[in-house]
Amino acid sequence: MSAPVALIVGAGDYIGAAIARRFARGGFTVCLARRNGDKLAPLVAEIETEGGTAYAFTMDARSEESTTEVFARIEADIGPLDLVIFNVGGNVRFPVPETTERVFRKVWEMACFAGFLTGREAARYMAPRRRGCIFFTGASASMRGNPGYAAFGAAKAGLRSFAQSLAKEMGPQNIHVAHLVIDAGVDTAFVRERIAASGADPGSLPPDTLMNPDSVAEAYWALHKQTRDGWTFELDLRPYAEKW
Amino acid sequence: MSAPVALIVGAGDYIGAAIARRFARGGFTVCLARRNGDKLAPLVAEIETEGGTAYAFTMDARSEESTTEVFARIEADIGPLDLVIFNVGGNVRFPVPETTERVFRKVWEMACFAGFLTGREAARYMAPRRRGCIFFTGASASMRGNPGYAAFGAAKAGLRSFAQSLAKEMGPQNIHVAHLVIDAGVDTAFVRERIAASGADPGSLPPDTLMNPDSVAEAYWALHKQTRDGWTFELDLRPYAEKW
Amino acid sequence: MSAPVALIVGAGDYIGAAIARRFARGGFTVCLARRNGDKLAPLVAEIETEGGTAYAFTMDARSEESTTEVFARIEADIGPLDLVIFNVGGNVRFPVPETTERVFRKVWEMACFAGFLTGREAARYMAPRRRGCIFFTGASASMRGNPGYAAFGAAKAGLRSFAQSLAKEMGPQNIHVAHLVIDAGVDTAFVRERIAASGADPGSLPPDTLMNPDSVAEAYWALHKQTRDGWTFELDLRPYAEKW
Amino acid sequence: MSAPVALIVGAGDYIGAAIARRFARGGFTVCLARRNGDKLAPLVAEIETEGGTAYAFTMDARSEESTTEVFARIEADIGPLDLVIFNVGGNVRFPVPETTERVFRKVWEMACFAGFLTGREAARYMAPRRRGCIFFTGASASMRGNPGYAAFGAAKAGLRSFAQSLAKEMGPQNIHVAHLVIDAGVDTAFVRERIAASGADPGSLPPDTLMNPDSVAEAYWALHKQTRDGWTFELDLRPYAEKW
Repeated sequence: MSAPVALIVGAGDYIGAAIARRFARGGFTVCLARRNGDKLAPLVAEIETEGGTAYAFTMDARSEESTTEVFARIEADIGPLDLVIFNVGGNVRFPVPETTERVFRKVWEMACFAGFLTGREAARYMAPRRRGCIFFTGASASMRGNPGYAAFGAAKAGLRSFAQSLAKEMGPQNIHVAHLVIDAGVDTAFVRERIAASGADPGSLPPDTLMNPDSVAEAYWALHKQTRDGWTFELDLRPYAEKW
Repeated sequence: MSAPVALIVGAGDYIGAAIARRFARGGFTVCLARRNGDKLAPLVAEIETEGGTAYAFTMDARSEESTTEVFARIEADIGPLDLVIFNVGGNVRFPVPETTERVFRKVWEMACFAGFLTGREAARYMAPRRRGCIFFTGASASMRGNPGYAAFGAAKAGLRSFAQSLAKEMGPQNIHVAHLVIDAGVDTAFVRERIAASGADPGSLPPDTLMNPDSVAEAYWALHKQTRDGWTFELDLRPYAEKW
Repeated sequence: MSAPVALIVGAGDYIGAAIARRFARGGFTVCLARRNGDKLAPLVAEIETEGGTAYAFTMDARSEESTTEVFARIEADIGPLDLVIFNVGGNVRFPVPETTERVFRKVWEMACFAGFLTGREAARYMAPRRRGCIFFTGASASMRGNPGYAAFGAAKAGLRSFAQSLAKEMGPQNIHVAHLVIDAGVDTAFVRERIAASGADPGSLPPDTLMNPDSVAEAYWALHKQTRDGWTFELDLRPYAEKW
Repeated sequence: MSAPVALIVGAGDYIGAAIARRFARGGFTVCLARRNGDKLAPLVAEIETEGGTAYAFTMDARSEESTTEVFARIEADIGPLDLVIFNVGGNVRFPVPETTERVFRKVWEMACFAGFLTGREAARYMAPRRRGCIFFTGASASMRGNPGYAAFGAAKAGLRSFAQSLAKEMGPQNIHVAHLVIDAGVDTAFVRERIAASGADPGSLPPDTLMNPDSVAEAYWALHKQTRDGWTFELDLRPYAEKW
């Protein structure tokens, strides 16, 4: 019997890498996609060193052509997709009056439109087989609009709504759609830089007050293990000390 | 003292027309914008017959250039905007697998991106004056994703999130931002046609089970009359007999 | 034709008094109820001086017997109730471990159970007549649980859920049920005392940063004026400068 | 090293029993509490046959005295509590006008007040130790009020709000509080009877359209395994074919 196949769209950040490692360790053949697939070589190597199987793909998730092409190649060359995770970010911060047309559009294309393309493509392959999982990474901004986050919030709220429609359409077709709300900073180079830029010392943070990308990966793993009589659509995730 | 000035973006439907009439009757000079401004002539004439003042504008609300140009002309030729209402729809219905890239993008451009352009432009004029109202028309789809409404829901959820960010940014600058959720069918030609298409007789509906566009207009009027010590961001609106 | 009749349960605070004045001015015969009805004499006198009609009732809103008795007396002696507003508070602040059984129960009896008794009694009279409005005063705590507000939040969330069930049951019977969320401090003696106790000077607050009770009353008035083709179930209310 | 200790309040139904079995299998000493503890003998025996350790307690969860007494006995005789799950139901169905004072109060005492007593008692023991999990079973009614469910909805909404306050207070003290929303019928004798009573044949239901109590137990297990850098407060659970 062949290994199940997973695709992680947006595999270039810490969270995407952690998800890839987790599912590889769990026996999945993992397909990794990011805009510049060449940059995935170290992650692929790492997974293979640990005994896993991984493939890198260059994919512009905002492009229908690029998205459908990567899905088609995976289905043809590697195997039928069992799990697709959309993990593309796009967090920017501007007050509304300073948000350019270009920023608002780009953030939406990355964080919402690309999620539609990936989700729809996954549904098209999975629905006839009546089997599969489609998961989306959300954020605090998915749940409410806040000052400075108009572009990001609008895109993430759109993605969440799309995931909800997809879940309601696909559930009865035996496809599990879920939306994971990361309501906190994740421990990444980007977040540590931002903390440093604000004048604080990221090294002096109390332990576990930033989220470990592995914990996000573990949450996805638990979602994927659920039996179909009890599927979760949405769950939040935040460190113990987070104010909310 | 000159009359206050209102702009209704998306003045081409029954709701837009009702809003225009209500604010004209309330003493506003009303600027009406839709994609084909020529079609607004009968509404302008009607308002003027009733003693009001109205101007028609051709505006592609999805275009930054067209939007900023109409705002600039109003501010230069008619007067400073006191109230801007974004009332552009874009309701379509497709299952996700049949939703084309083009549909998903067009619906977002109409229902969300255009709202961003209008809201941002209004904020840019109003914030320095520390006075004004910016209102957005929402729908049931603003609140949750449902089967068949993936494109519309994602766009309306994005608009709602944007309105929330804008409200939180602009409130302290004395600008009232609100989002009105129409959680029902409004009594329009389009809705009556859809009811007829489904085999039912729209003429046999019990009275008041479709929403009167005038009631939407009245809700906007009440929002605009609120004093700044007690502003509403969001309210829903539905007929008494509606299931929800 | 006789004047319509309103009952305000919890008429003893600034908000209740403002509602009473507003509906009296709007032509209602207003019935005022609070635990010690004698204390309502100045408000009744004030309303009558302004040409209105008001009656004071002693009612323990947490008691079924007291509630049904006051409703029965109004219906028998004054006239059929057109509007009932439940405006009983009960805000207390304790961390969970220090919240006594007694506090948790008392707060619920005041803020939730009493609302059930009043709402049910109003529905029993109004439903057969197929006419009436039943409104509930909510708070920020109605929407989410927060540290220090476990008892108050649980009670207000319960009241909100009850109002929602009642709205869905009573809408088709032509009864308008609404829930008004006051998401801010209202300008009352109690709030000013609390501000002073925190070391700040309530007199130095910028204008309109506390909510005027009259604005709450005006919001109720607008709700009551809605036609049944477009009823609001819920709206929020907060000062322009409020952080949320 | 001694086994961790769990208490399941409301262990008398299928869900409670499944949770008990799951945590016993996972190495917990499980304490089971229900109104009539004698009825727990078969479950205790079953768990012990499987090699687990279980103790039965008679506890009236609506009584402060009974609750504190059972907590004290467990802490004294069995060990420090690591995990407490509040799983008491109370689902009843009445239209508002037919909901008696007694029903409204009893449902609240069971579904909300008892949850407060259990949650507070757990927090009091766990907070000083800075370790522990407190979980609450929610339902569809926790999220919104619906016709016929005024009493149940008000109680469950109150419980959810309480859980949220508790989570925000206890998180920084290293206590994990979560609320699991079961948005579906669970496969229990009670639900099958209700289905039969409605004229349908529960035996003819498609597989997995009722939720298996074991899936609820597994969800609790996954919550309890989360590391503190990424805790979930809330997740929903429903069968794949459920309409929502």
